Formats: sequence, C-alpha cells, structure tokens
Amino acid sequence: MSLRPVFLLTTALALAAPAVFAQEAADPGATPEAGVAAAPDSPDAELRAEAAEWFEPIPRAAELPSGRPITQPRIELGKTLFFDPRMSLSGVFSCQSCHNVGLGGTDMLETSVGHGWQMGPRNSPTMLNAVFNAAQFWDGRAEDMAEQAKGPVQAGVEMNNTPDNLIETLESMPGYGELFAAAFPSEEQPITFDNFALAIEAFEATLITPNSAFDQWLMGIDGAMNEQEKRGLRAYLDAGCQSCHAGVNFGGQEYYPFGLIEAPDADVRPEGDVGRFEITQTEDDQYVFRAAPLRNVALTPPYFHSGVIWELEDAVRIMSSAQLGTELTDEQAMDITAFLGTLTGEQPQIVHPILPVRGAETPRPQPITLPANAPAE
Amino acid sequence: MSLRPVFLLTTALALAAPAVFAQEAADPGATPEAGVAAAPDSPDAELRAEAAEWFEPIPRAAELPSGRPITQPRIELGKTLFFDPRMSLSGVFSCQSCHNVGLGGTDMLETSVGHGWQMGPRNSPTMLNAVFNAAQFWDGRAEDMAEQAKGPVQAGVEMNNTPDNLIETLESMPGYGELFAAAFPSEEQPITFDNFALAIEAFEATLITPNSAFDQWLMGIDGAMNEQEKRGLRAYLDAGCQSCHAGVNFGGQEYYPFGLIEAPDADVRPEGDVGRFEITQTEDDQYVFRAAPLRNVALTPPYFHSGVIWELEDAVRIMSSAQLGTELTDEQAMDITAFLGTLTGEQPQIVHPILPVRGAETPRPQPITLPANAPAE
Repeated sequence: MSLRPVFLLTTALALAAPAVFAQEAADPGATPEAGVAAAPDSPDAELRAEAAEWFEPIPRAAELPSGRPITQPRIELGKTLFFDPRMSLSGVFSCQSCHNVGLGGTDMLETSVGHGWQMGPRNSPTMLNAVFNAAQFWDGRAEDMAEQAKGPVQAGVEMNNTPDNLIETLESMPGYGELFAAAFPSEEQPITFDNFALAIEAFEATLITPNSAFDQWLMGIDGAMNEQEKRGLRAYLDAGCQSCHAGVNFGGQEYYPFGLIEAPDADVRPEGDVGRFEITQTEDDQYVFRAAPLRNVALTPPYFHSGVIWELEDAVRIMSSAQLGTELTDEQAMDITAFLGTLTGEQPQIVHPILPVRGAETPRPQPITLPANAPAE
Repeated sequence: MSLRPVFLLTTALALAAPAVFAQEAADPGATPEAGVAAAPDSPDAELRAEAAEWFEPIPRAAELPSGRPITQPRIELGKTLFFDPRMSLSGVFSCQSCHNVGLGGTDMLETSVGHGWQMGPRNSPTMLNAVFNAAQFWDGRAEDMAEQAKGPVQAGVEMNNTPDNLIETLESMPGYGELFAAAFPSEEQPITFDNFALAIEAFEATLITPNSAFDQWLMGIDGAMNEQEKRGLRAYLDAGCQSCHAGVNFGGQEYYPFGLIEAPDADVRPEGDVGRFEITQTEDDQYVFRAAPLRNVALTPPYFHSGVIWELEDAVRIMSSAQLGTELTDEQAMDITAFLGTLTGEQPQIVHPILPVRGAETPRPQPITLPANAPAE
C-alpha cells in the first residue's frame, strides 16, 4: 500500500504486466502516458497521487502468483472444462452456470441453485480478476484458483460430482484426450483431477477486466471520471474504505470481521454462517470474511455473502456503518456508489467452446428424476 | 425432392444462398467447383447424382422462410436474450441451458431439467439449422422459430416465466432498451413479447452448420467421405431412410407415425406421449411426430423424443425396424452410422454476450428456496 505512484503506473502500462503483488522497480521504458499521470498541473494531481498510494490499475494480462504457466493449450482446455455441464453429475451445471462471463462472473442470484435445485449457502463470487486475490472463496479457504476449482465440482449442493466420475467422463471422450495432451505435453497420463483444476485456473487467469474508467483516470486521463465519481473517490478515501478494499482488486487480500464496529442485521449476516471460524476454529475468526474485491461490483448484485442486498448504495451504507461506524450522508453514499461504478472494466470476450463429443463409455448424466406433466418440447 | 442436381449445387455454392426451400434457377455465375460436382468421370458420379436428387448442402447463410429481416442489431439482441438466464422466472435457465451452442444445440440430457428441477417430457431438439425446418418442436406445433421461442419461456417445467414479467424485466434494463430500439428502429415501443421472439428467431437463423463432410462431397470433393461413409450413404438410400429424412436438413419437413411398420418399445415411444394427436385430435396423428432433422446427429445423443437411446447405431436400427420394417445387418447399421457422422458441419462460433446490467426496478429472480446445508462458496 505504500508503493510510490510512479511504480504502480509504469507497471500498469506494460501490456503484459507481471503479477501485481510483487513490488517492481520503475520501468525505464515507461511510456509518455506515465508522465501525464504524474503531471503536477492536472487539477486531479493531488487526488490521483493519494489514490495511487492505495490502488493499481488492472494490467492487460496477469501471471499466476504461483508462477505456473498460462499456455494457450491450457487456456483452451480450461475454457472447455469451464463451459462443460457434463462436469456435473446431473449434466446440468458448468462453472459458467454460477460464474457467468456475461454477468460479471456471477449468477445474479442471492445464492446459487445447484444439484436437485438445492440453494447454496453463499452468494456466488466472481472469478473475474480472481487471479489478483490472495485466496479464494468468501472465507479464503482455497489458496488459489486451482484449489478453488476442485470445490464446486464436488460440492453436494453444486455440481455434486466425484473426482472418479469426472476423470472417467474426461477419459471417455477422445476430444478431451487431445486437449489434455496438448495442455500437459510432458505427462504420460495428463487427465488428472489436478490438471483439470490447473487448466481451469489458467483459463480464469485470463478473465481480467482492464481499462475501467477509474484505471484510465489513475493512469492520467482526467476526463475518464466525472465530478461526482471523483467526489465519490474522495469520500471513499475519507471514510477509510481503502483500509480493507485496496490494491489492484480493491480487496481480496485480507480478512476482517463482518461487523467490525456494529453487527449487521441478521438477514445480511446470518447467524449460522460464522465465516472463517469454520476453517480456523479460532474465536477471533467469528464472522470473519475475506474483504470482497470491488472490481466490477456494479455488475454483480446482489451483495454480501448472504446475497440479500440488491442495491449497491445500500451495500455501501451497510459497510460504512458495520465496518467503519460511519453514517454516510445521502450525497456521500450516492457519490461512493457512482465511484464504484468506475471500477467496471472491459469484460472478457469469450468464444463459446465447442465441447467434445461423448464416447460410448461416457458416464450418463444423473439428474434426479421427478415426474413431469407439462408442455412438450 | 425432384430438383435437378445442378440447381442444388449452384445454390449451395453461393456464399449467401437464399432460403433453400425455394426452387432456384441455375446460377449463371456458378463457380468451377460446380463443374467438379457434375464431372461424369468421378467414380462417385452416380451415387452423387442420386444423392443430389434428395439432399442439398447447408448454405453458408440462410434467410427466414417468412422473409422477415435478419439484421445485425436483431441478431445481437437475439443472442443477448438467448444467453440471458434472467429470461426465466428463477434466473437460472436461458435458451442456451437446453440448446447449448457448444453441444450441438442440445443439452445432452434424456429430457431437460427445468424450473424447480422438473424434468421436461421430451428430449431437447437442436436449434442448429432449425431455420430449415418446416415447423418447430417434435410435434411441429410452432409454425416457425419465433413462435417456438415463446414456448419454453412460459412453460412451467422450463423457464416458468410470464410475458408480463419478461417485459417488465426487459423494460427495467436500459441496456435492453437500447438493444430493442436498435433492432426495431421504426417502433415506438419496441420492447414487446413478439419482438423478443423475432430477435431470438433472427439470432437462431444464423446458427447453421455448413461445410460438413457430406456437403463437401455432394459439392464434388470425392475425398470428403471415406469408403465406409459412402457405403453408408448407399445403404441409407437403399433402405429408404430418405423417404422421411431428406432435403437440406435431412428431415424436419413432414410428419410420420413413429412406428409406421412396427411399434417401438414402450421406453422408446412412451404410451402417454401421443405426439401430434394432441395438437390435431385426429386419430391418424396418434404417435405422429415431425421427421427429426439429422444434421449434426452424431453430436446430439440421446435420441428420439423420449431421449432414452444413447447410441446412434441403436437409433438407426430402431428406425429401420420401426419405420421401414427392415432388419439391418451389422455392417449396414455401422455404415449408415458412419455416414450420419458426415452430416456434422462447422459449429457456430459465438462470442458470449455481455448481458445488460439490471436496474433498480428489475424483478428479482424467483427460485424456489429450499434449505441449504452444504459447503459454502
């Protein structure tokens, strides 16, 4: 959080910026625009300098923090797996079902609908820019996107599959054999549950949203944000939102109790979901969650892990009172909401994959059959 | 079915061929390849000439039989609607859920899973090349794709929505306002249920699969099919499959009793589904269905309206005995199956749309809430 602005800005301007967690030396090949950003004669110079102490633009490409390779064949395989509903036991749900690339990486439901029409316990978080998070899931229980990818596919309320059935499914389709061989060319048996997860991770690492209005402004374009949005940024900083929601992803880095100052209503913070406490069994982790990343937040209602708040402005007010003990004025709440809208970046343009043809041995989908008595197809 | 081959071939070679139902005059600007097709010295000449009496290649673009315009703004709107799960009451299902562009336009389930995890009564048919069908649905009860598009969105076991709630949803999102205004520029109130359907129809009219191996062969490239596939075509014609499955779409034109010669097993033809009889209440229409179009059939198991047959070769045998009273030899069944594999064309490459942002007044999704007790996101 204390990087000097010039470092952040030059990093951001590199087309294939390295993982943004690492502190970089100033790039000697910085483009002229970096100079614009630092121009002291801009009326926004002071606000920009303060913002640059806290935030970084989304780069146009990301690396995995682990250093694992993001090769084109891995991306292609990962994309295919991500969109394939046959990864679920029922044949109904794919990763895309709850992390829709057309809906900001979410499903816009309070909580997701899964196998047998069960409702998941938490709101589906976006995978867009998830590569920039320190850990995955609301409670950070997965270290990275590969570990995360192994979760929903096995969860009983989500895809309800088993690694064995998944591998049998993948092995039965020659198309997947080719995709895995290309993605993991040095391995004799490339179709493994680990590689399934690594491929999805590689694809998801490409799902980033650069060039938001805020990022353009941060990089020196005064007109990229309007006056209300700039007032909102000022109010965001004055209120202290950046204490938790900062960095390249405006969050996703650290853990905080939800209700640091004042417990939210029980519908917003259901009593039964104690957050990180379930992972650590540490009393201090009661109702502790990972600070939500705020990139594209205007695209992803409803809000909070409970998913019960549908308006961003309401979410802003709740956070302000629960976490900071501040009652925002109407104008402040509206301005901050307007500012958050500037965090919407370019959404990924994904060509829907053509999925491999099933084989004779491919396990059949296993939905739970219920009686039907309705119009025919 | 009695068009002279030269007409069909020249039509097929035009990049934007007009609706294939209309009989065309021979194109004076026919490319040299048309000559190859008619070359009498090819060893395939005789088989090709016979095939050309029955079949036509998929053109590279289609027009709507109604003559309604397929404009780029309509396609874009239709694509957005097609992929938007908020068109369903639950917010879970879109057209794409059951007509997956990555799965040959189907969901690869025996019957589709819909609202509240209900199972639909019939297997989900593909929308790929549906523009070439004389009518839509297994029983042909929708005259065209626009009429069809109004069905699933309202069906209780599918998307379970109402036109009113749908229109309210669309009107609440400024992004849809812009898309509808662009697609229907001369209308003051462009957001209507009819226009919803017309836009989806325009998008679906682009979902065609030209350039299959068979089409290449039909257009004169001997090597596009191998010997087994050519034997399969010979066997297909000798058995009489083309009596029902012919034309550009290898079916989709007329109605026939399923079990013309011999009733299939009750699992394949469930007693309770009397097909077209439900529409016409005419005794002759008992178990009558539209002849299924066979384009891309290798991609779309399971088969029949009941969806209980998973292997194409089994489906071929059942059709042969039920419709033609013929017991195919193993070799014939395998050859015909291999031939049907040549009907797989180029699959549509669709960039997943970025869906409009919801508005403050957008109706919330209404899934049926069930208790949850499972791993969290």
